[in-house]
Amino acid sequence: MRIDILTLFPEMCERFTGESIIGRAQAKGVLEIKCHNIRDYTVDRQKRVDDAVFGGGMGMLMQVQPIIDCFDAVCQQTGKRPHLIYMSPQGKVLTQQRVKELAQLDSFAILCGHYEGVDERVIESIVDEEISIGDFVLTGGEMPALILADAVSRLCDGVLSGEECYTDESHYNGLLEYPQYSRPADFRGMKVPEVLLSGHHANIDKWRREQSLKRTYEKRPDMLEKAELTASDLKFIESLKREKEDKKTVTSE
Amino acid sequence: MRIDILTLFPEMCERFTGESIIGRAQAKGVLEIKCHNIRDYTVDRQKRVDDAVFGGGMGMLMQVQPIIDCFDAVCQQTGKRPHLIYMSPQGKVLTQQRVKELAQLDSFAILCGHYEGVDERVIESIVDEEISIGDFVLTGGEMPALILADAVSRLCDGVLSGEECYTDESHYNGLLEYPQYSRPADFRGMKVPEVLLSGHHANIDKWRREQSLKRTYEKRPDMLEKAELTASDLKFIESLKREKEDKKTVTSE
Repeated sequence: MRIDILTLFPEMCERFTGESIIGRAQAKGVLEIKCHNIRDYTVDRQKRVDDAVFGGGMGMLMQVQPIIDCFDAVCQQTGKRPHLIYMSPQGKVLTQQRVKELAQLDSFAILCGHYEGVDERVIESIVDEEISIGDFVLTGGEMPALILADAVSRLCDGVLSGEECYTDESHYNGLLEYPQYSRPADFRGMKVPEVLLSGHHANIDKWRREQSLKRTYEKRPDMLEKAELTASDLKFIESLKREKEDKKTVTSE
Repeated sequence: MRIDILTLFPEMCERFTGESIIGRAQAKGVLEIKCHNIRDYTVDRQKRVDDAVFGGGMGMLMQVQPIIDCFDAVCQQTGKRPHLIYMSPQGKVLTQQRVKELAQLDSFAILCGHYEGVDERVIESIVDEEISIGDFVLTGGEMPALILADAVSRLCDGVLSGEECYTDESHYNGLLEYPQYSRPADFRGMKVPEVLLSGHHANIDKWRREQSLKRTYEKRPDMLEKAELTASDLKFIESLKREKEDKKTVTSE
């Protein structure tokens, strides 16, 4: 997998992509993340890459020329035209499903906006997809780009070791993850649930599944509608609903 | 505003918080972001902070002791107990509304999980709120924490200059932002819409409002339901709906 990031802050991005799991995957050669400085492509003599907005208004806009020429250079370097994603509050909100799809590609590129964003003609002429990280306002697209790169990289072959297996994680199987505990078994009077210390694997699996269902039911009931549930899962959820109803009745009596 | 970040990767976080708008706000003294290394608080002789999960399973879990002692130290340093947010896929998904509310606080703290997350007893005993950046799986909570810090900081007094005004941004007024253009007016045949070059402010405002409505209608119709709309906005949206219906009819004939 190769990911090209087009940004005004390549050093900031490179510091992240050199660290932790992504850094190790690059060292192993299973992943390549290249950061490109858009400023290197401006034809402006003062090396400017932004200017005022036509029609008036506050803030500066990233200009069309440096971005398009930077992307042309990426295409030449990679010998093809990678799928170009623009991180934008206007995009579709990122989901794990889209992350999985992107992990199937050989390569893609990410454009990071900054200041007021980019000239609309960039979006019209070279952007294939707009992705938003969520409904909140940020300073720039760098952190969202790194989040996308991180989420996709984790799913590529050879990036995670067995130790860092991802199949049990929250959102991977459509349910929130069960509570987890590590040593000590008793910390200042706070104890680990007995079943987890029992060594009885069938009981542990049952407890974990039920805890996953319970948490998802309590915190993110919307996720249950899309999750793959067995008959016994559905029965357990019914018991949670009854419990809740009973509580309501007791309280109102 | 003071934000304390509890993490295993303080250098990675500090590199970000020293840059761009957040870095400048810290230099001006209107914002203070302190990163604390959880590893400094472990009582383990080998300086370990993670261990296997009780009950079996892949991956390592951040242990309870170093985190709780790190948070105690933050409380002592700040002379109070800040609201503690844990970045977690189990949390409520972040919205601009929650960002605005957090910007009203004097201070808060963010705990970043890594590996398989943190021992459940941390959440039970010291975490006040769990926030998720979105429904996707990441390597750690550092990037989500920085995103939260960035989003909140932008709204604090004195952080943004007038130039970087945020009231027009996508999501701030509940609509997506209108298209924006900067020089040149003609780039390789791609032209800026005439109205933006006209200098006629009332026409420009009308065009921008309509473009905002049109984009929101096309890309994020869910946002329209919550947006504050005038009578003429509603009329314009009706015309968009009719246009779409007419197109359908033509296509199916």
